[in-house]
Amino acid sequence: VSAARHERVGLVSIGDELVSGRIVDRNSGEIAARLLELGFEVSEVRVLPDDEEKLARAFVDLCAEHGVVVATGGLGPTLDDVTRHAAARAAGVGLTRSEEALVAIRAAFAGRSFAMGVSNERQALLPDGARMLPNPVGTAPGFSVEIGGALVFALPGPPVEMRRMLEDHVLTELTASIASAVATRTTHLFGLSESVFADGVQEWMRRDVNPLVGVTAHAGVLTVTVRARGVGLADASDLADARLFEIEAAFREHVFSRPHGDLARVLGELLVERGISVATAESCTGGLLAARLTAVPGISAVFREGFVTYADEAKARTLGVPAELLARHGAVSAEVAAALSRGAAERTGARLALSVTGIAGPGGGSPAKPVGLVHFGVLVDGRVETVERRFPDRGRSFVRGLAVNTALFLGLRALS
Amino acid sequence: VSAARHERVGLVSIGDELVSGRIVDRNSGEIAARLLELGFEVSEVRVLPDDEEKLARAFVDLCAEHGVVVATGGLGPTLDDVTRHAAARAAGVGLTRSEEALVAIRAAFAGRSFAMGVSNERQALLPDGARMLPNPVGTAPGFSVEIGGALVFALPGPPVEMRRMLEDHVLTELTASIASAVATRTTHLFGLSESVFADGVQEWMRRDVNPLVGVTAHAGVLTVTVRARGVGLADASDLADARLFEIEAAFREHVFSRPHGDLARVLGELLVERGISVATAESCTGGLLAARLTAVPGISAVFREGFVTYADEAKARTLGVPAELLARHGAVSAEVAAALSRGAAERTGARLALSVTGIAGPGGGSPAKPVGLVHFGVLVDGRVETVERRFPDRGRSFVRGLAVNTALFLGLRALS
Repeated sequence: VSAARHERVGLVSIGDELVSGRIVDRNSGEIAARLLELGFEVSEVRVLPDDEEKLARAFVDLCAEHGVVVATGGLGPTLDDVTRHAAARAAGVGLTRSEEALVAIRAAFAGRSFAMGVSNERQALLPDGARMLPNPVGTAPGFSVEIGGALVFALPGPPVEMRRMLEDHVLTELTASIASAVATRTTHLFGLSESVFADGVQEWMRRDVNPLVGVTAHAGVLTVTVRARGVGLADASDLADARLFEIEAAFREHVFSRPHGDLARVLGELLVERGISVATAESCTGGLLAARLTAVPGISAVFREGFVTYADEAKARTLGVPAELLARHGAVSAEVAAALSRGAAERTGARLALSVTGIAGPGGGSPAKPVGLVHFGVLVDGRVETVERRFPDRGRSFVRGLAVNTALFLGLRALS
Repeated sequence: VSAARHERVGLVSIGDELVSGRIVDRNSGEIAARLLELGFEVSEVRVLPDDEEKLARAFVDLCAEHGVVVATGGLGPTLDDVTRHAAARAAGVGLTRSEEALVAIRAAFAGRSFAMGVSNERQALLPDGARMLPNPVGTAPGFSVEIGGALVFALPGPPVEMRRMLEDHVLTELTASIASAVATRTTHLFGLSESVFADGVQEWMRRDVNPLVGVTAHAGVLTVTVRARGVGLADASDLADARLFEIEAAFREHVFSRPHGDLARVLGELLVERGISVATAESCTGGLLAARLTAVPGISAVFREGFVTYADEAKARTLGVPAELLARHGAVSAEVAAALSRGAAERTGARLALSVTGIAGPGGGSPAKPVGLVHFGVLVDGRVETVERRFPDRGRSFVRGLAVNTALFLGLRALS
């Protein structure tokens, strides 16, 4: 499956903070993964400091071997930022202030509380012959320019801006030029481990098979990718769809979404669609469950209220959990989880109420109730079920993240 | 602050999975950070596939410009693993099976549940003239070899093995050869933009000055780094401290922490230390403020309760915000922000109550109250102050993240 030169891509990540190790370069990995889905293969990544001469040399080198080079970073307003200068030098052209870019930068600053500094005008400099790439989510425009027969894209370093401009400009342009077709399908599973999944589909995950199945895990969510190469897009799509179907059939009760792995969005959109009101009651997750649900645009139509009853007295005062129940079973118990979801539903009138109470650590564990023990309450139209989970103790934020996703998945399952 | 050639280090991270984006290269950052502490500057990182020819060329290139090159990965037993071959080719020498390495590999397999395969004997191949570096935590030995006057260290890719061998071999050897010393200082600021900061200290951020000042921004938090080079560690430290002092004096009201940039941790630890109880009342941030504060270990001693009063009726019912006030000023107003913090303090008895109400988007904005408008309420011992901010509309999660950090910063300032 070796790619032709024009399908080979080189990446450059630019910034002193990346080379020195203060910040991990995540942009390259993300760009490489997105490109791979389209059938483009990244064959080299260089991480370089904000050093004009070094950058110019890297551009020349990479452009000799690749059809496309994508650079991120070094487009800021300070004297440190020299990506524009390096690209101009490598292309053997001058650097001119672009009126089009200046207008875009001024527009980005209009209506902000931060004023545009003189240094921001520097961001309007572009190599002669370059095309400006508008940045709808930041102040630094990017650009594309030809160097030694290769097409170079320069994008800003902040991931939010990079991501948007990668989609808008780089991927759109490259997609138009693809030769052999690659089809990619994705699905998302919850409630089983990466290795249990991998054991089940071992033969489909060997590097040399087509389609190729890959899996990654984050906070309990498995992202399964099927990538098929075919003679045309229809052929590749058929291959990918067939394999995806087999996988989803084998793990039916774990599949929750195809397009994305955000359990909050899947549950939130379902609630909005069906007009089901929701409330949350949290102890160890401390508001994270409410925060995840309220991150979903449009959720205000159904999200009634969230309660972060962290202290025991808050559980009693606000959600009416009997003090006697807390004393007898402890705050981390199925009984209290049930009482929390009941209290949240009764106070707000919500049809769905999710509760979480557990021991996230680092302290607070005991042999009977170790760090990682979490109880969940799921109330639908007045009926409560409770679920107990024992997560591995890989730190407070790991346990909290997994607990939130579990609560969301339980809510989703209760409604289907 | 240019380092002498013998103090400049190049890094090579080797592996198909790193280039394709399936795994993020964390080794380079870790190695760079450790080297920097010793005064060695990493000036380039290359991430490359398991491709002998490409690797050999990278070794030659990097050895021409650096005194030391550290490579990780590609030392496994399979045919994919070609780092040894590439190093031999770049050094212009042959590859011979080392009896010393074979003995070490056999010893590593003794007492393991996996048997040593024939393929593992491949791991005993070393470039002629290379020195074997024992690996006490894995089966693959590393090696060091001279290429073009530079010293090349080849270490295994798995982080646990890399880390141990970096300490045992690379750092020990390099420490013995240090000439000048480097001291690094960091501080964190909130409430001003990266470019306003850069405009204010422009002269100190030029790449050729000593000490050198750098800045990065995330969710409104600026991380400022001062790096000084001196004839000895005491001298370097004095230079770095003096510049840090000047910066902190110039931006006094924005400085909130030296060791780390987590505003929730700074505020949370202050609250625990002083025994000040806290409650939160959130609308647009939907629990994120409570989630950030409850992520701080030990916070349960002071965190009373969090209210996610998303719907207007929840604001009225749970926190006693008068319906008349909501109708007259709207939920996003200074009046309602004040009432939310008062309600949270009254219900819980907390001494500090922070409230957030705003328009995070994507919908819900108007000319008078655009997306990005957020009102904050800060109550300390019964006295409320309100603050209004207009953040740029870079998406819901950007506005929410900035709003949470602003609330934390306002809480911190109110207590100092």
